[in-house]
Amino acid sequence: MYRVYGDRLSGNCYKISLLMALLNIEYDWQDIDILADETHSLSFKAMNQNAKIPVLQINTSEFLYESNAILNYLAEDSAFLPCSKIARGKVLQWQFFEQYSHEPYIAVARYINKYLGLPKERLDEYNAKQEGGHKALAVMEDQLSNTAFLVGDTPTIADISLYAYTHVAHEGGFSLTRYPHIEAWIRSIEALPNYVAMNSSSHQ
Amino acid sequence: MYRVYGDRLSGNCYKISLLMALLNIEYDWQDIDILADETHSLSFKAMNQNAKIPVLQINTSEFLYESNAILNYLAEDSAFLPCSKIARGKVLQWQFFEQYSHEPYIAVARYINKYLGLPKERLDEYNAKQEGGHKALAVMEDQLSNTAFLVGDTPTIADISLYAYTHVAHEGGFSLTRYPHIEAWIRSIEALPNYVAMNSSSHQ
Repeated sequence: MYRVYGDRLSGNCYKISLLMALLNIEYDWQDIDILADETHSLSFKAMNQNAKIPVLQINTSEFLYESNAILNYLAEDSAFLPCSKIARGKVLQWQFFEQYSHEPYIAVARYINKYLGLPKERLDEYNAKQEGGHKALAVMEDQLSNTAFLVGDTPTIADISLYAYTHVAHEGGFSLTRYPHIEAWIRSIEALPNYVAMNSSSHQ
Repeated sequence: MYRVYGDRLSGNCYKISLLMALLNIEYDWQDIDILADETHSLSFKAMNQNAKIPVLQINTSEFLYESNAILNYLAEDSAFLPCSKIARGKVLQWQFFEQYSHEPYIAVARYINKYLGLPKERLDEYNAKQEGGHKALAVMEDQLSNTAFLVGDTPTIADISLYAYTHVAHEGGFSLTRYPHIEAWIRSIEALPNYVAMNSSSHQ
């Protein structure tokens, strides 16, 4: 059985929980406390030298890290990873967009606000994240005004990647009311069979 | 024939030129000047709403962006993208590592130093990039002390992704002399048949 090392606070870890639920894959969950710096233990770094969650343990000796790489691994041969070459390219396009142009703004602003309590010494950084976050949301809104999901008419792991931090973007100060297509897309994802909410305990 | 929209200064665009050369794929190159902000023109944003290079034009109506997504698209069915599911997962793992933990430090420090001339107002930012860059290099050194390339004994697009900015890391202030396995890996990549150097004009 797969084992996932993760923290319930992390949207990057939630991506894995959500796909596992949607695909009805059983797994074991091992809590790693990022606020207690548990990713920097020697035993954790033996699995991921880069000291980040989530990590997927595939068997006794094989580990995979980076949330979006794990999603691709788990979704192979499922409806969440299209067969056509161009569609697979676009799934990856959106996932790399997520890690470079979306997560560093929206997830980091949310972390500073929700988990660190918006301390004075990080207020400038928090404010500086707002412009980049709205730019990323505008790119998504543009696509979702043309297609129901990010890569066409059916949900893929690109949607799971971007849903994770977008649906809690308000916790980083980003109101979604000016993005009606993003709001409709969030409702579509939450209506999928076997959907689980963030921080639910259904993956244990 | 494929068309690539890119800037010769950009390591993200060089990834595409290098893979095209190694796979002996013909293509047309269209210069986009990032310092002149040409990615923000209406015609460019019709191809990539996120206003970034490189963009691959596949046919008259299909465009793909994000350098690592383009590499995956082009490398399918070639020796640079392994067949096994776990190896493909690890290729993506290293590519997401590159975009989140490597490029934002090493490429950005290099850009501030080489192209902006290390202006006083960005000196703090430049200095702050050094720690993260060395952390990323240490993760690579650890892997390359175990395997000749990032995912096993043969080169993959993971190596191309990470080679692009690593081999010019000194231009961002990162000396590689303390990373002997990275230095050997760079020499291995530069010895591949059909290798082209950055900023060469062989792709025109």
